Amino acid sequence: AAAIPPGVVSILDAKRGDIGNTAQAYARAAFDDLDFDAMTVNPYLGADSVQPFVERPDRGAFIVCRTSNPGAADLQNLLVSTPDGERPLYEVVAQSAQKWSRHENVGIVAGATYPDDIRRLRELCPSMPFLVPGVGAQQGDVGAAVRAGIDAERLGLIINAARSIIYAGSGPEFAEAVRAAAQRLRDEINASRAAPAGRGA
Amino acid sequence: AAAIPPGVVSILDAKRGDIGNTAQAYARAAFDDLDFDAMTVNPYLGADSVQPFVERPDRGAFIVCRTSNPGAADLQNLLVSTPDGERPLYEVVAQSAQKWSRHENVGIVAGATYPDDIRRLRELCPSMPFLVPGVGAQQGDVGAAVRAGIDAERLGLIINAARSIIYAGSGPEFAEAVRAAAQRLRDEINASRAAPAGRGA
Repeated sequence: AAAIPPGVVSILDAKRGDIGNTAQAYARAAFDDLDFDAMTVNPYLGADSVQPFVERPDRGAFIVCRTSNPGAADLQNLLVSTPDGERPLYEVVAQSAQKWSRHENVGIVAGATYPDDIRRLRELCPSMPFLVPGVGAQQGDVGAAVRAGIDAERLGLIINAARSIIYAGSGPEFAEAVRAAAQRLRDEINASRAAPAGRGA
Repeated sequence: AAAIPPGVVSILDAKRGDIGNTAQAYARAAFDDLDFDAMTVNPYLGADSVQPFVERPDRGAFIVCRTSNPGAADLQNLLVSTPDGERPLYEVVAQSAQKWSRHENVGIVAGATYPDDIRRLRELCPSMPFLVPGVGAQQGDVGAAVRAGIDAERLGLIINAARSIIYAGSGPEFAEAVRAAAQRLRDEINASRAAPAGRGA
């Protein structure tokens, strides 16, 4: 993370999930050796696999919850028995993420490609930050994702794009093309924040 | 994997789970750059996150199913609605692993610390190889794991230990102490294979 300017939050999207002893080593690598502020973490191994990433108040984790890829529903949308009735697994994961947040330093990954699920997650987690992949090469609809996931203060989303930005140009035009692609996405996000759908004007 | 002698199967226990495009890059790194034979894969992102690890007949994957750590049950034992009634999530994962096996090149990870769950997995997956962590530093019972997980040919288990072997000694005694620890584990495994519990003699 040494190449990232100070003041910019850096998130290592490594989706790690391992037993406690190994998770501690991954957390040291990400937070101490590489100096990232946060990391994405896979929840399948449960609480002790997440703990090393969330126990420090100055670092945080985004729990992989509802991802943007075609196979996401295979496990994440399975219906699970809970004391409140049946719910999709990703909702149980979101509630676990809230429980695992010790220092208001935990968010969830909620893919832009499934805005209905983002909306449901925002109902369950009104104040959690959402990391939202899937708007670039994966073709999620920015406006739909923003309208579904924005919080009561019209904030709460970190919308990331990788391939659509870093491959926006090449050769001498590289820097300008990448800058323009990033600005277009930023402007599109902000335009969607400004215009709530279906609430009048 | 260049340090591993030829003829020894090498498994990269990296528990990767990411969207298809990223999974393809992880598979290339593990199989082509590092020349591992197989890799452990986290199932939470579904079929397209697993596919790059299982599509080559000369390489394979162990799907993380029922792990050995204390928090494993948090998600893995949640009861899921299926057409056959409610079953723990890890059973659904085991059945998905069987479905994802295109070249008889897929196994599952089943922690030694939960022998009852290993037994259940063997009933569901009679001929799949199981990668069984948890017998060393994590204190799983080797005999119980072998009796629970062994297949009809008294094979089918890859029981691995890391810390209890590599930290068995130090200094000038290192090589001998490590060799002795590995041999003790091997002998304990084979003794448990030879003596089926509760089947007479």
